[in-house]
Amino acid sequence: MSTGHHEASWRLAESDPRANTDIGHYRRLARIAERGAFDSLFLADGPVLFDDVGQRPAGVIEPLTLLTVLAGATEHVGLIATASTTYNSPYNLARRFASLDHVSGGRAGWNIVTTAGGAAARNFGLGDAPAHAERYARADEFLDVARKLWDSWEDEVYLGDKESGVWGENDRIHPPRHRGRYFSVEGALNVPRSPQGYPLLVQAGSSEDGKDFAARHAEAVFTAQQTLAEARAFYADLKGRTRAAGRDPEGIKILPGIVPVLGDTEEAARRLERELDELIVPRHARRRLAELLQVPVERLDLDGPLPEGLAPETEIQGAQSRYALIIDLATREKLTVRQLIGRLGAGRGHRTFTGTPEQVADAIEDWFTRGAADGFNVMPPVLPSGLELFVEHVVPILRARGLFRTEYVPGQTLRERYGLPRPANQHLIADPVPAAV
Amino acid sequence: MSTGHHEASWRLAESDPRANTDIGHYRRLARIAERGAFDSLFLADGPVLFDDVGQRPAGVIEPLTLLTVLAGATEHVGLIATASTTYNSPYNLARRFASLDHVSGGRAGWNIVTTAGGAAARNFGLGDAPAHAERYARADEFLDVARKLWDSWEDEVYLGDKESGVWGENDRIHPPRHRGRYFSVEGALNVPRSPQGYPLLVQAGSSEDGKDFAARHAEAVFTAQQTLAEARAFYADLKGRTRAAGRDPEGIKILPGIVPVLGDTEEAARRLERELDELIVPRHARRRLAELLQVPVERLDLDGPLPEGLAPETEIQGAQSRYALIIDLATREKLTVRQLIGRLGAGRGHRTFTGTPEQVADAIEDWFTRGAADGFNVMPPVLPSGLELFVEHVVPILRARGLFRTEYVPGQTLRERYGLPRPANQHLIADPVPAAV
Repeated sequence: MSTGHHEASWRLAESDPRANTDIGHYRRLARIAERGAFDSLFLADGPVLFDDVGQRPAGVIEPLTLLTVLAGATEHVGLIATASTTYNSPYNLARRFASLDHVSGGRAGWNIVTTAGGAAARNFGLGDAPAHAERYARADEFLDVARKLWDSWEDEVYLGDKESGVWGENDRIHPPRHRGRYFSVEGALNVPRSPQGYPLLVQAGSSEDGKDFAARHAEAVFTAQQTLAEARAFYADLKGRTRAAGRDPEGIKILPGIVPVLGDTEEAARRLERELDELIVPRHARRRLAELLQVPVERLDLDGPLPEGLAPETEIQGAQSRYALIIDLATREKLTVRQLIGRLGAGRGHRTFTGTPEQVADAIEDWFTRGAADGFNVMPPVLPSGLELFVEHVVPILRARGLFRTEYVPGQTLRERYGLPRPANQHLIADPVPAAV
Repeated sequence: MSTGHHEASWRLAESDPRANTDIGHYRRLARIAERGAFDSLFLADGPVLFDDVGQRPAGVIEPLTLLTVLAGATEHVGLIATASTTYNSPYNLARRFASLDHVSGGRAGWNIVTTAGGAAARNFGLGDAPAHAERYARADEFLDVARKLWDSWEDEVYLGDKESGVWGENDRIHPPRHRGRYFSVEGALNVPRSPQGYPLLVQAGSSEDGKDFAARHAEAVFTAQQTLAEARAFYADLKGRTRAAGRDPEGIKILPGIVPVLGDTEEAARRLERELDELIVPRHARRRLAELLQVPVERLDLDGPLPEGLAPETEIQGAQSRYALIIDLATREKLTVRQLIGRLGAGRGHRTFTGTPEQVADAIEDWFTRGAADGFNVMPPVLPSGLELFVEHVVPILRARGLFRTEYVPGQTLRERYGLPRPANQHLIADPVPAAV
């Protein structure tokens, strides 16, 4: 998020408003994250110019490209890129993730999204995005095909017999020969199986379809939860769905996003929060809120509550869980549109923890130990300073409490770091082949 | 080409048969190329597992991913990746090339191919590849859309007015709103215009459709020519077509592929050539030749000439120019199938120059000064040793003769190195906007 997750962060004196395309900026962030022994970097994405260039830094380096650069600038940190199952083909995308996993030595992750919104659809020849359920049905088949492609090479294809001129064993190549509702993919991937087998699979939508999809496929889930109670309910629900899908609930890590607004004193942290909120240009934020809620902008009175008669979540073809969260937040806390805009400006619906490092560590411990989270997606409002503060002041407290690692295990893959097993090749499970004699 | 362009190179004692996925190997090659002040690295590609893993190293890092890694390992050398207009969508691909151009500081090039062959088609839901002319019609529109996307940001979008909260100028964003026969793309790219404006445009097919496409769009052309006479005819033809298309013939650089087989003496070079050819497994090579010629493998007699009654070039829906070249070569030099296989094994139809560094430099000078080439795509039969020999022994001779640069101009983009102008933004040509007052 270039200068930070708060939409007005670029306006602070300390911020470089051109950080969005500055590779040096992202290298610095990655190195700070690695100093903090973070699990991974996580990049959101959509194939569309989301932001109004009049409002905030817009235009970025495509995430897989950026993470490939960062793979070379780091040694340990995981590299998770968002990519859409609606606007990619399985062969091309499976290739790219396998390639990132190779060049990073097993640090790749894929945040699987189905991409809401007509603007993205219209960049790919469609009039509007496919319906919500349709997108998830396609995503299911996409995953199925991608796994077939990643498993199309056994790990042991290579033989390297120079003498007889046999490089590899054809019997250990398994073309998908997939013919489905959305995709037909005949041939094997042209990338050998990668260090992790395939990238860590991450999911980030919290609609009913999204949660069921996560229960079937995801190894980590990025979610937005505003209260401890909601987060615990979500956590229990998703672990239960995962069990019901026949998987070990330990095999899915739940990572709510948190926006840490840090200060030496609680008052200093509140001051930073206020300063940032006052830098939001209401005209832009109101228009974007209207888009999210799918109402005409005139219906949003800055100093009144949200309008009556908003559509129920299940009728929304966009990002359903984000929609529900915004309405719940405004209703529960009786916010005016202006106040709601301030809350959303910090992290687009993610939970803000504002206070001293000790207070933020307390909140993290609370969520972590009370069944609301297996970890967190830390979304600093200002970058790089917010990440530096977190690594220098919050991480040491978490370490002192025995809640977080003090260093990396050298050579560990991202999946190993999460305590998850390397996926076996489906061809060796279904029809076991003995190791070469 | 991992261990080299000769298909049997992996079998040499010096070769690492696992170089195909070893990033360190490619970093070494890039650094050797940069020591020789080469213009660029060039990676071929197709979205398909081309090679029989039983025969030679197969499976590679996806080229844009690999070149992104190499961007970080080098400073000057250009980075040209092959990508298909048939099996990509313009929005995704334009994004990726703009991103590579950003992260490399203006060193990206795109070798535009339409991808022959049914195997690739069947990885993307098609039964067979679209017909030759159809592929080129799609490629034309693809280029049109890609340019609209790359030009959707003027260079001067950024304003950075922190005081008033205006980051950029919306008037300088131009969504393509493209509706064509093959593509509909509505919105602006989500990557700001890159250092070169857009990647250097390279083309590599020499069919009639291919040459006309190159004349309209390409700034560099990679071609396979066996004799000086053919190369001169091709050169004159393509420069003429470029002029006829209303472009400056100086704006298109013609780069035949050459396979330098080097030795201290001519005999040593011939020995290496023989050693490599004897390592080819005829069974594999015969099958591949049969595929290229679209005849049953039984019709190819290893010790006889090519069979009678092969289809004319224009009826071939695959790689037409490669097809014609192979038949011409076999006919002109009266080669048996076995001899033809040896010649193709070295560089798949590219010209082999075998001899001492002096002899190879002579041949290069001859082609360069007699109107057959503006430069060359050097395809060493063995890597890294063949590239090292070329850089250490041939390049100094070319430099002493005043035919090649001695060092890079720091900070030069790939297009500047070719002496080509940075493309103007189409929105500023069609409807000039004065610079900000």
